[in-house]
Amino acid sequence: MSIGGLAEDRAYGNWHEMLERERGRDDRVDLVTVATPNATHFEITKAFLAAGFHVLCEKPMTMTVSEGEEIVKLAKSSGRICAVNYGYSGYSLVRHMKAMIARGDLGRIRLVMVEFAHGQHADAGDADNPRVRWRYDPAQAGVSAQFADCGIHALHMVSFVTGQEVERLSADTVSCITSRELEDDAMVNFRMTGGIVGRLWTSSVAIGRQHGLTLQVFGEKGGLRWAQEQPNQLFWMPLNQRLQVIERGEADLSPEADRTTRVTIGHAEGMPLAFANIYGDLAEAIRAEKEGRAVDPAANLYPRAEDGLRSMAAVFAVAASGRADGQWTDARPPMFR
Amino acid sequence: MSIGGLAEDRAYGNWHEMLERERGRDDRVDLVTVATPNATHFEITKAFLAAGFHVLCEKPMTMTVSEGEEIVKLAKSSGRICAVNYGYSGYSLVRHMKAMIARGDLGRIRLVMVEFAHGQHADAGDADNPRVRWRYDPAQAGVSAQFADCGIHALHMVSFVTGQEVERLSADTVSCITSRELEDDAMVNFRMTGGIVGRLWTSSVAIGRQHGLTLQVFGEKGGLRWAQEQPNQLFWMPLNQRLQVIERGEADLSPEADRTTRVTIGHAEGMPLAFANIYGDLAEAIRAEKEGRAVDPAANLYPRAEDGLRSMAAVFAVAASGRADGQWTDARPPMFR
Amino acid sequence: MSIGGLAEDRAYGNWHEMLERERGRDDRVDLVTVATPNATHFEITKAFLAAGFHVLCEKPMTMTVSEGEEIVKLAKSSGRICAVNYGYSGYSLVRHMKAMIARGDLGRIRLVMVEFAHGQHADAGDADNPRVRWRYDPAQAGVSAQFADCGIHALHMVSFVTGQEVERLSADTVSCITSRELEDDAMVNFRMTGGIVGRLWTSSVAIGRQHGLTLQVFGEKGGLRWAQEQPNQLFWMPLNQRLQVIERGEADLSPEADRTTRVTIGHAEGMPLAFANIYGDLAEAIRAEKEGRAVDPAANLYPRAEDGLRSMAAVFAVAASGRADGQWTDARPPMFR
Amino acid sequence: MSIGGLAEDRAYGNWHEMLERERGRDDRVDLVTVATPNATHFEITKAFLAAGFHVLCEKPMTMTVSEGEEIVKLAKSSGRICAVNYGYSGYSLVRHMKAMIARGDLGRIRLVMVEFAHGQHADAGDADNPRVRWRYDPAQAGVSAQFADCGIHALHMVSFVTGQEVERLSADTVSCITSRELEDDAMVNFRMTGGIVGRLWTSSVAIGRQHGLTLQVFGEKGGLRWAQEQPNQLFWMPLNQRLQVIERGEADLSPEADRTTRVTIGHAEGMPLAFANIYGDLAEAIRAEKEGRAVDPAANLYPRAEDGLRSMAAVFAVAASGRADGQWTDARPPMFR
Repeated sequence: MSIGGLAEDRAYGNWHEMLERERGRDDRVDLVTVATPNATHFEITKAFLAAGFHVLCEKPMTMTVSEGEEIVKLAKSSGRICAVNYGYSGYSLVRHMKAMIARGDLGRIRLVMVEFAHGQHADAGDADNPRVRWRYDPAQAGVSAQFADCGIHALHMVSFVTGQEVERLSADTVSCITSRELEDDAMVNFRMTGGIVGRLWTSSVAIGRQHGLTLQVFGEKGGLRWAQEQPNQLFWMPLNQRLQVIERGEADLSPEADRTTRVTIGHAEGMPLAFANIYGDLAEAIRAEKEGRAVDPAANLYPRAEDGLRSMAAVFAVAASGRADGQWTDARPPMFR
Repeated sequence: MSIGGLAEDRAYGNWHEMLERERGRDDRVDLVTVATPNATHFEITKAFLAAGFHVLCEKPMTMTVSEGEEIVKLAKSSGRICAVNYGYSGYSLVRHMKAMIARGDLGRIRLVMVEFAHGQHADAGDADNPRVRWRYDPAQAGVSAQFADCGIHALHMVSFVTGQEVERLSADTVSCITSRELEDDAMVNFRMTGGIVGRLWTSSVAIGRQHGLTLQVFGEKGGLRWAQEQPNQLFWMPLNQRLQVIERGEADLSPEADRTTRVTIGHAEGMPLAFANIYGDLAEAIRAEKEGRAVDPAANLYPRAEDGLRSMAAVFAVAASGRADGQWTDARPPMFR
Repeated sequence: MSIGGLAEDRAYGNWHEMLERERGRDDRVDLVTVATPNATHFEITKAFLAAGFHVLCEKPMTMTVSEGEEIVKLAKSSGRICAVNYGYSGYSLVRHMKAMIARGDLGRIRLVMVEFAHGQHADAGDADNPRVRWRYDPAQAGVSAQFADCGIHALHMVSFVTGQEVERLSADTVSCITSRELEDDAMVNFRMTGGIVGRLWTSSVAIGRQHGLTLQVFGEKGGLRWAQEQPNQLFWMPLNQRLQVIERGEADLSPEADRTTRVTIGHAEGMPLAFANIYGDLAEAIRAEKEGRAVDPAANLYPRAEDGLRSMAAVFAVAASGRADGQWTDARPPMFR
Repeated sequence: MSIGGLAEDRAYGNWHEMLERERGRDDRVDLVTVATPNATHFEITKAFLAAGFHVLCEKPMTMTVSEGEEIVKLAKSSGRICAVNYGYSGYSLVRHMKAMIARGDLGRIRLVMVEFAHGQHADAGDADNPRVRWRYDPAQAGVSAQFADCGIHALHMVSFVTGQEVERLSADTVSCITSRELEDDAMVNFRMTGGIVGRLWTSSVAIGRQHGLTLQVFGEKGGLRWAQEQPNQLFWMPLNQRLQVIERGEADLSPEADRTTRVTIGHAEGMPLAFANIYGDLAEAIRAEKEGRAVDPAANLYPRAEDGLRSMAAVFAVAASGRADGQWTDARPPMFR
């Protein structure tokens, strides 16, 4: 008999039980997904990694930078996969952006402008709604609300497509609904390795925006624009030429795009398949390990513990800079300085 | 005989000659437009105001804040109109935004996000092109390039639609093309009277953006979005409702919109008519004065010397803040502090 | 051991073998999907229905109208589900259109305009490409090419959302690439029960259109527009009001929309999940039967053998009308006249 | 003294008076614009042409085909300009479409799809509104309503951009609001010289469409799409390449586009300037005549009496075909057969 498709003897009551019983099985699971409340991610991820399981942790990976460093070290020493679910990086055309930049289509990248703005928490009348309130309460949410919730997705996307890392940042954090302790809107200016200038806007009071994760990358030789709400088109303008519309599913895109394309051009693929692509990457990595072969480079793109750690360092840097009137702040985890 | 439609005896060789000869005529011109090189705006505007002419000056009105204060005082003492051509404020739906905000449709305004980004100066190979180079040379352009050229349009729009003024700001100014002394990209965070939080991005290296003046205003009760490149639609989302498309030419818009609507709904009006609306405001003001009656309030919207002055104060504040790592800086002209 | 996730002993060499062996099992499959070459659909569907299996047949269900009638009768007499995979009808907002029309939001429907235009076969140099050529060859494709391939999807959508059926039609069929025997472009005017006027354009030579399935419905009290390439928005204009954007995932949509919504507003769902919704309908129907309860009406929406039959009647009517200079032709299957 | 900018002695009481007095002046007007009620166009146009004036007549030029032929002959024999104001052909990017097609960018044109659909007359409650009712009354409007009002604009556009003429057509005309005698919706299939297949949809009950004049042209080597509501972009897809966005004001467009471009790229120009371009063409033609030189070919594009005549022939053909169940009907004026 099965429970929701799960064999009865493997439907565990809690993660401790799962860990104990799975580690003893010959057919133990390959990959454990950690999708529990945020504050428990660190403990569970650590335990399963230590026990030799591959792990995919929901974001945020940890609540502090030092926990993040501990996970990174453990992932390294254990030789296990520790992935973090920045699922938007799974979109086919986001991967094509990365490929275009890596192969030099844009030349040196000068500037990125990224937004993740929505209006889901714009109703001041919701201030007592527990589903909203906890997010802006430091006791429950930590040092940051909107940046920690949405901003780090956007910041990860920038690193993902450019292949560069954030070094320092200056943040303007505000509570547009003034009863909130934590920010519901933030503007973050930053600098990356490779000399890239970055700007990131995130908001939860932007009424009229649904889920506006938008990424613009400007290089010496061209500019790219992609928006999560219309993910099957990528707008590309080569310097001194015309705007072109790259369609998901076009012939002759990059291997990274081809690998993540399921249906033909003109048929939208959405967010669930973007997230599935992350799982596809992990399946390939696990299979390659079992088969003793190299991982397909076009699949070797899942976000890693290092990304989870860098996000946490950025969250603390944003909070510190925001409190200090936008003072420029080191955004790197200590272990990467 | 006429020269280009101008009577031969009124086609003057220079502004001095024009001033001398027009002031002596019974049928002297009502309004003088100053569209000469930037560094001469102050001198010419001053001379014609002093001689009792109404003036419409192209932006920037002056090159320094103190010159701007002098013009403001002179305009006041002379009783003449001194308008500044922030022409984008002439768009019918921009005026409707102002009307919606003034009548309370959005409640208190919390946040504005405005962009003016293009890629016209993104070609590093243009560095020696004199038509581009002067803009980034302090000897010719003053303390700011992209913000002074485009940013102040965007900042004026924010004041225009909200009816509030910028008080202080923090700027991140960069030269993405590193041979430039002045900035080709800037992010400005600001605070306005009325407690409004503002963010403004301007760039001349954003390849793929044509002339991206975009304005988003978020209040307690709804959000508005308008883009200069698609100026005949205004996107309006009331809190907890759906996005609606307001069309230029709809029945029952505001008097400000109705007055500036020439053709029926579904037929685009563009930038030349937006600029014409500024002239229409001035014609109404001049006519009302001659007829000894009050100006139609729906036409009393042309940008004034005070706006030109505030822009100049913002330019110097952005330049100073940019040099000081984004330090928050008073953006008000001394005479308004 | 398993082959591609299938138990080894159930990976059959052909459909005859599958039929023989599955019918004998206690754990026989619930549903058989027929995704074989078009000309075999009839035979296989018939055989599995007759053997008591539920069937989901890819379109076209049959190659002739009389075969279609045979399947309809067999489905009825067998009591088995015979579904046809018009997968575009699985989109959440298409189902919401149907719900809005059914509950009267648009009043009586006056007019529908539907398009399914792409440019995939616009290259005359492809005339000898066997992957394209067979489609325009009557010996292989039957009486119609583009209408039979794409047009019937569009026509089904019209019936699906309005709940009405096509009665008669007039077609203008052309071969824009003149070496083709069958049409690559067709315009079909039609009349439906309920007095609806219909227009349908389909093309395979429309360079610049990717997969332009677009549906516009105009009633006494409002108009709706939906496009397959941007399936997460539905444009709704109530009479004498403003255009509104209905988003997939909004609160308080219809039960039909809610049931087919997986991820939150602002996150695209694409075509694979639309098709999955058809399977979801079938799972519900099969489960309800096993549990002896009524099917959830919000799931009882999968296309049926009757739809497959009506499509085939329309294909023959279009071909006949096209040959007869657009003469109005009965589009109903004989058994429904 | 002047009346609305017009010299007092030239503000005439009616057209007869104007004709008599202007013909006697040395400084007689160059061009007479006929913007009177439709039924008077023929008489007035004829009178002014005969008296040696150039004429720009609003559409429809006449109420019958034979009147149209009379005007064409008179325009020819008089040597005067007789233009018809199909003002949408004045848009800069429409002229660029024409130039691209003429120089062969699309190869042979196969297919055009044009729409002119709005929802302005969709309210059945307006049936007694005299401003709407007359349009659907044969006694006042003639043989056609929506096709004669909007359809002929669309049909003219097709001829304008392709340089080909309609030869025959088949129409499906319907009154969606059943109390109307004349059609409020029509679908017209047609064939043009050069072997072009055409489809045209026009409607006044399409709620949600504002003023949807949209033109799609498909050739052997590419496809173009342009929409009147977003007139500053032209969508161009060369065969087997990507969709490109052509912007009004781009460098290196055609002379036809350059001549009609006033403001820089990224600044919309709208309908009033499109109409102004027609007047610009006429000014150039009149000036060239006075100066005894050839007209600039990039300006020699204003619609002519022949276009007005062809429209009238199409109106009668649509009405006849509509009454005869879509029978294919010769759409050419007798004098051009």
